[in-house]
Amino acid sequence: MALPKKEQFSEWYSELMKEAELVDLRYGVKGFIVIRPWAMYILKKMYSYYEEILEQYNHMPVHFPVVIPERYLTKEKEHIKGFEGEVFWITRAGFNELEERLALRPTSETAMYPMYALWTSGRKDLPIKLYMSELVWRYETKATRPLIRGREFWWIEAHCAFATKEEAEAQVREDMLTAKKAIWETFGVPFLFFKRPEWDKFAGADYTFAADTLMPDGRVLQIATTHLLGQNFSRPFEFKFMDTDGKEKYAWQTSYGPGMNRILAAMISWFGDDKGLILPFHLAPVQVVIVPIFKDESKKKVLGYAKEVEGKLKALGYRVELDDAEDETPGFKFNKWELKGVPIRVEVGPKEAEAKALTVVRRDNREKQQLSLEEAAKIEEIAKLMFEEMRKKNEEKMRSSIVDAKNWDELKKGIEEGKIGG
Amino acid sequence: MALPKKEQFSEWYSELMKEAELVDLRYGVKGFIVIRPWAMYILKKMYSYYEEILEQYNHMPVHFPVVIPERYLTKEKEHIKGFEGEVFWITRAGFNELEERLALRPTSETAMYPMYALWTSGRKDLPIKLYMSELVWRYETKATRPLIRGREFWWIEAHCAFATKEEAEAQVREDMLTAKKAIWETFGVPFLFFKRPEWDKFAGADYTFAADTLMPDGRVLQIATTHLLGQNFSRPFEFKFMDTDGKEKYAWQTSYGPGMNRILAAMISWFGDDKGLILPFHLAPVQVVIVPIFKDESKKKVLGYAKEVEGKLKALGYRVELDDAEDETPGFKFNKWELKGVPIRVEVGPKEAEAKALTVVRRDNREKQQLSLEEAAKIEEIAKLMFEEMRKKNEEKMRSSIVDAKNWDELKKGIEEGKIGG
Repeated sequence: MALPKKEQFSEWYSELMKEAELVDLRYGVKGFIVIRPWAMYILKKMYSYYEEILEQYNHMPVHFPVVIPERYLTKEKEHIKGFEGEVFWITRAGFNELEERLALRPTSETAMYPMYALWTSGRKDLPIKLYMSELVWRYETKATRPLIRGREFWWIEAHCAFATKEEAEAQVREDMLTAKKAIWETFGVPFLFFKRPEWDKFAGADYTFAADTLMPDGRVLQIATTHLLGQNFSRPFEFKFMDTDGKEKYAWQTSYGPGMNRILAAMISWFGDDKGLILPFHLAPVQVVIVPIFKDESKKKVLGYAKEVEGKLKALGYRVELDDAEDETPGFKFNKWELKGVPIRVEVGPKEAEAKALTVVRRDNREKQQLSLEEAAKIEEIAKLMFEEMRKKNEEKMRSSIVDAKNWDELKKGIEEGKIGG
Repeated sequence: MALPKKEQFSEWYSELMKEAELVDLRYGVKGFIVIRPWAMYILKKMYSYYEEILEQYNHMPVHFPVVIPERYLTKEKEHIKGFEGEVFWITRAGFNELEERLALRPTSETAMYPMYALWTSGRKDLPIKLYMSELVWRYETKATRPLIRGREFWWIEAHCAFATKEEAEAQVREDMLTAKKAIWETFGVPFLFFKRPEWDKFAGADYTFAADTLMPDGRVLQIATTHLLGQNFSRPFEFKFMDTDGKEKYAWQTSYGPGMNRILAAMISWFGDDKGLILPFHLAPVQVVIVPIFKDESKKKVLGYAKEVEGKLKALGYRVELDDAEDETPGFKFNKWELKGVPIRVEVGPKEAEAKALTVVRRDNREKQQLSLEEAAKIEEIAKLMFEEMRKKNEEKMRSSIVDAKNWDELKKGIEEGKIGG
């Protein structure tokens, strides 16, 4: 197959979702999609990197139920006003009507904070720094788009609580830092945090910073937010602590939500090309594909050597696929694995078998390099270099798309040139 | 806490859940609990080990929506009969009544198999081997018990499909093998698979094997199941493939569900003692706690050395806590961390500081060993030995609890002696 050119971004994206077997839109409920194995593997890897970073910054995982009783959800007035149009309601169970409706959580502030209040008596119980790597659901009425806008989405939500406003504000800055470490440094997706105007802040927050990235069609995609909640939730939820000065005070809170399926969508869009996906080595379900190239007379020798190469690369800990299907040509296989974004292709033919060598091909620019089998560990260096070079290109593209507008005229001009304000 | 585990298991378990801060039962919806950070960290580790094993056996992760449209759920008649009393129903969203009710999935066969049918045309599309590490919900009407019986539970569900019955039956055996590798070899929980009688098999299965472990009070706890579904689902879901003989055939299916929160409950129960939890080193949120022991005159020296030890152990990659709180005695700290199950305690006092040494204490038997700081990497060996010794004890206990009854009299006698039939 041939994808539409990436310049036709919308068509390219939709086709890629289908052809690379990333998602399936044919599930029988509007706005709910199946995340297929290739994409789910990548998403799980992204989670594990993000979680590792959060844990380095002293967050611990937690689980709160996915259902929120109506009396919790409606406790903070601005919050419920912001979400009431978006909530799925469970009203029945088995053969019974429930006494109280249960919301399928659209976000977890109102599930978590009554418990935070129970866990906190003195200043020594603070700070609390917890995250959940789970799903939320919103009855989205706008047009949906796979991994970008749907009714069920994967995110991380981190909820912190402190004794002072200063600590809470420092947490908002730390959230922006961990976003940078994960989204930019680890996944290669450039973005900028912008403080949201009043009308666009999170329902119940003092202020919101949101991370925007750019999609290839010039549109902005919000991929993470962090909010200073102040004492807006601690007051209605009676989340108090006895301070060292003997006075009872309300906790200061923050919440932070990287949208994991959107970050995946952005990563796919930044790194992909006209031939398909390009995956960073550390996120790829298959990191190296081995394609044997032979004629009848060299078949046995080449296939034997290809297996040796497979063993060697697996012993190095790489995720390897030896594509020895006999009913497909090497060219067909190249296209197939390029579509899937496998970062490194290793070609082995009679010459390589003879010399115990590898021809290593980078997915991004198809640059070829010869390695001896003994040097196979250099594959990871090649892949890392590829990632860093692509990341640098992404950065330059992001930079060139930003205009530092000093007045309305400059902003208008910038927008006409397809840039975003900074 | 000080409760005898064996004699008062039920009280011991409940107290431990609370005192070690594993779960919180005060969430405002019956049967839904909060999994607190200490337990959630362990649970996530268990998931990552289990998933690694499944991936070694060529499973890939996938995500299907948590909601199942009523028309899917009711398609296989035995299945819906088994579950209709247990389903939570979403009937409203935002301000609207939904046109079709959505079930919060009690299990995912009926969500997944319509899609499996779409993904499969020829024999080359099989086998399918996918797993989900997610939640399911059942409107449980029996008494609930934290991590053992509730309305929301964590599990893995793996769903496979094959061209032949033989392959599907081999998958059931493979499921029992991966269960052994994860639950017994990695988590140390002994169990036996039993074929369930007709009346107790999974709703819609040809047959079911279930893994039972023993709790300290002699009760049996089912912690995993694997089912040969045969063609019971492939027929109503039209899940067919064109075989190499040119005939269209229905796929052969299996499903497999390790109950992760139950496995955690069993691990806690097998490994804990009268003082609290005992955690396997590889699963513990904190693997090593350092407790400095000093008087006023040695304080500075001991605390300085304790920090050096902390640095050294962190450099070895261990998860380390230096407990230098000044308002608690060493004895208080010992109890606190023993309750939490930290497998290794390192005591450092003036003597250790002088000699650049460590006193290493095993959580299970409090056996002390002296190491030089240079030998710190031996901590992991000590911890591994501890795990293997405990696992061996668990095995012996399990063995001695099983009676191979040849007739009813022997079975009756065995049960009176607190054993189970095998």
